Amino acid sequence: MKVDYGNLVEVKTKDKIYRGILIPRAEVIPGNYLVLKLANGYNVGISKREVKKIKLIKKVKRKISFVKKIELKKDLPIVSVLSTGGTISCKVDYITGGVYPALSADEIIENIPEITNFADIRAREIMKVPSEDMNPRLWRRMAREVVKELNSEAEGVVITHGTDCMHYSSAMLAFMIKNLNKPIVFTGSQRSSDRGSSDAFQNLLCSIIACANGKIAESMICMHAGIEDNFNFLLRGVKARKMHTERRDAFRAINCLPLAKVYPNGEIKYSEEIYNERKRGNVKLDDRIDERVALVYFYAGQKPDILDFYKSEGYRGIVIAGTGLGHVATSFKGYSWISKMRELSKKEIVIAMTSQCLYGRVHPFVYTPLRKISMLANVIYCEDMLPEVAYCKLMWVLGKTKDPIKIKEMMLTNYVNEITKVTNPNAFLI
Amino acid sequence: MKVDYGNLVEVKTKDKIYRGILIPRAEVIPGNYLVLKLANGYNVGISKREVKKIKLIKKVKRKISFVKKIELKKDLPIVSVLSTGGTISCKVDYITGGVYPALSADEIIENIPEITNFADIRAREIMKVPSEDMNPRLWRRMAREVVKELNSEAEGVVITHGTDCMHYSSAMLAFMIKNLNKPIVFTGSQRSSDRGSSDAFQNLLCSIIACANGKIAESMICMHAGIEDNFNFLLRGVKARKMHTERRDAFRAINCLPLAKVYPNGEIKYSEEIYNERKRGNVKLDDRIDERVALVYFYAGQKPDILDFYKSEGYRGIVIAGTGLGHVATSFKGYSWISKMRELSKKEIVIAMTSQCLYGRVHPFVYTPLRKISMLANVIYCEDMLPEVAYCKLMWVLGKTKDPIKIKEMMLTNYVNEITKVTNPNAFLI
Repeated sequence: MKVDYGNLVEVKTKDKIYRGILIPRAEVIPGNYLVLKLANGYNVGISKREVKKIKLIKKVKRKISFVKKIELKKDLPIVSVLSTGGTISCKVDYITGGVYPALSADEIIENIPEITNFADIRAREIMKVPSEDMNPRLWRRMAREVVKELNSEAEGVVITHGTDCMHYSSAMLAFMIKNLNKPIVFTGSQRSSDRGSSDAFQNLLCSIIACANGKIAESMICMHAGIEDNFNFLLRGVKARKMHTERRDAFRAINCLPLAKVYPNGEIKYSEEIYNERKRGNVKLDDRIDERVALVYFYAGQKPDILDFYKSEGYRGIVIAGTGLGHVATSFKGYSWISKMRELSKKEIVIAMTSQCLYGRVHPFVYTPLRKISMLANVIYCEDMLPEVAYCKLMWVLGKTKDPIKIKEMMLTNYVNEITKVTNPNAFLI
Repeated sequence: MKVDYGNLVEVKTKDKIYRGILIPRAEVIPGNYLVLKLANGYNVGISKREVKKIKLIKKVKRKISFVKKIELKKDLPIVSVLSTGGTISCKVDYITGGVYPALSADEIIENIPEITNFADIRAREIMKVPSEDMNPRLWRRMAREVVKELNSEAEGVVITHGTDCMHYSSAMLAFMIKNLNKPIVFTGSQRSSDRGSSDAFQNLLCSIIACANGKIAESMICMHAGIEDNFNFLLRGVKARKMHTERRDAFRAINCLPLAKVYPNGEIKYSEEIYNERKRGNVKLDDRIDERVALVYFYAGQKPDILDFYKSEGYRGIVIAGTGLGHVATSFKGYSWISKMRELSKKEIVIAMTSQCLYGRVHPFVYTPLRKISMLANVIYCEDMLPEVAYCKLMWVLGKTKDPIKIKEMMLTNYVNEITKVTNPNAFLI
């Protein structure tokens, strides 16, 4: 039986019945698969071989949206919106299966007319990449484009981005742009904009407000603060992390309070955290990095041979997400990391220690094994930096110097509020 | 100048002045180091070469503790306390530098006389290992000893353990002990028992209460619930994680509510979570595991070559902590994981996917790249299991079968409440 895309169907297989809208496969999966969009908004792929029957339940009319021209207020601050890909820019057309290009400024305004109260938008697409595919080459390109906008008349830059690795990008750009003068605000959505529960519009609106009217000139993330659509958090880009796979309020501040709450009505409430303020002058691209850095998550029972691998592959730096205050195994033969770490240290491969606890600070002087790690293997204990942030920072530091003393000094220098001297005791699980 | 250990001194170096109690170095650090216990309870090591001056500030008298014999109530439930090492069993004697062996039953009772209201204690040391040094051999030994106790007249077993990797051990033992009939309660301390702020005593007391009077027969963790000394949480051992490097309330329930609150006065308040209840009959050791399992934390920019390494080392299973719903890079040459994952899958190396978000559930059918990963590379999406738990479970599953279909089926079977069908929406950041 032939059913057109875009219609509600029931597909029967040997074991199961699926009900959903038949949509075209967006990418090349070998073999023959049907794809249905289920009522919960998720898509499911079903091998055609398993399909026993397809029943047309309802013909769905195609919605065609017209872009309306909306009159802008005069003298609004200019905000640049750069799109990089991710769920926020996914709008599948059920009929053609084509994926729309990035939202144009007109489309953004059509979907979020409130924006015309706050800013004059300039939107363009700089890449179209799911965020887990971000890499040093793309971060450099992103930084270059953001620098252009920051040195234009725009009051700030919104970057729409996939959520999974948004906090890697927000950290990398924090280091790559010197003399930051205006807000850089990353945003995305956890639910695609064709779902009723989408967070895309509020996230975009609040991000634009933070750029148009906000005082903070840092690389930040602006996402839903709670499961209600009340307001967004403005999070420090080097102190934030995606902490839930699905929730709209997945992004949380780690070891630091959210910098501000941003309300869709334009209000911004700042927290007590100290931040970098807007300033005059131009920013400068500082994107020399050494990509040969790995992030290794230590686990109980892990053998240190993984360090040999990175050594043989020519890596120059390794960030370890150790346990607790910054531990790895040290006691038993075959498991102890100490001698391998010393070997790496002798080859001038830098080892930086963070904690897989995520919250809190590493500290080399509490336990004897840590003192050994720190003294014998020259491991740099990265204070309260997140593993992902230390990974980005170490690439950036190794792009500047090869001197081990200078590297340690730079890793422990606070450049963009990535190190908090004393953590606010309330900054736990908020 | 010669100052005896145990005295309060001031040590002057070129840059700094340290004040603290001079203690002996507990382990072999090459070179000459002084170790001071600072007022904040932490120790600091100072190279003797850097010492300009040592000043005696105060002679500290040695405290000698006598073990008092305390009369026990009759007919109290018997609780076994097995000590394995960690901060909770660290009591440095400032004079000799020796570390006490595990607390004896008498010493526990001397320190926590309230225990005599609840239980008759039997304590013994089964190993003395910092928890980051735990490994499959030690887990097997631990499981064997716990099985002995569970099949004795004891009403439950408390395991004192280092905190860093306590959640790895609590997960491993959950799988290794079949037909669990009584509580297994892991506990430890974030501050050593020689510090005023130590959590050792309340943690031990509440753990013993949970064993003596509690209804839940699961492998659990009992640690401070908040920063106040009000009560402890009883957490499911396969749904808990150390989330802070230092705080006493570092252990949190992930994707499930705490099972109960335990109060030092003996009260236990159960949450709405469903749990496994105490039952009759004996437990059985089920410790056949395959150790050749790795845990890989994916990060943006990571190349898939790490999979070659594990393949060449003869690993049989790899648990990936992917991004978001379970992603790795798939788009760019040199970075895409798809073809390497397929290679591994052809060699019957099992790949299991979890999320580095920690909270939430992985799901292979939301995005096209995930559908590819799931279909092409036979990756097992591990529902809402934590990466550490999936790592322990995969070792245990591979110890039972080599059949890929059976492995997948077992990984997705809920054995000890490690998979929650529907996550309680309140189980986020609590």
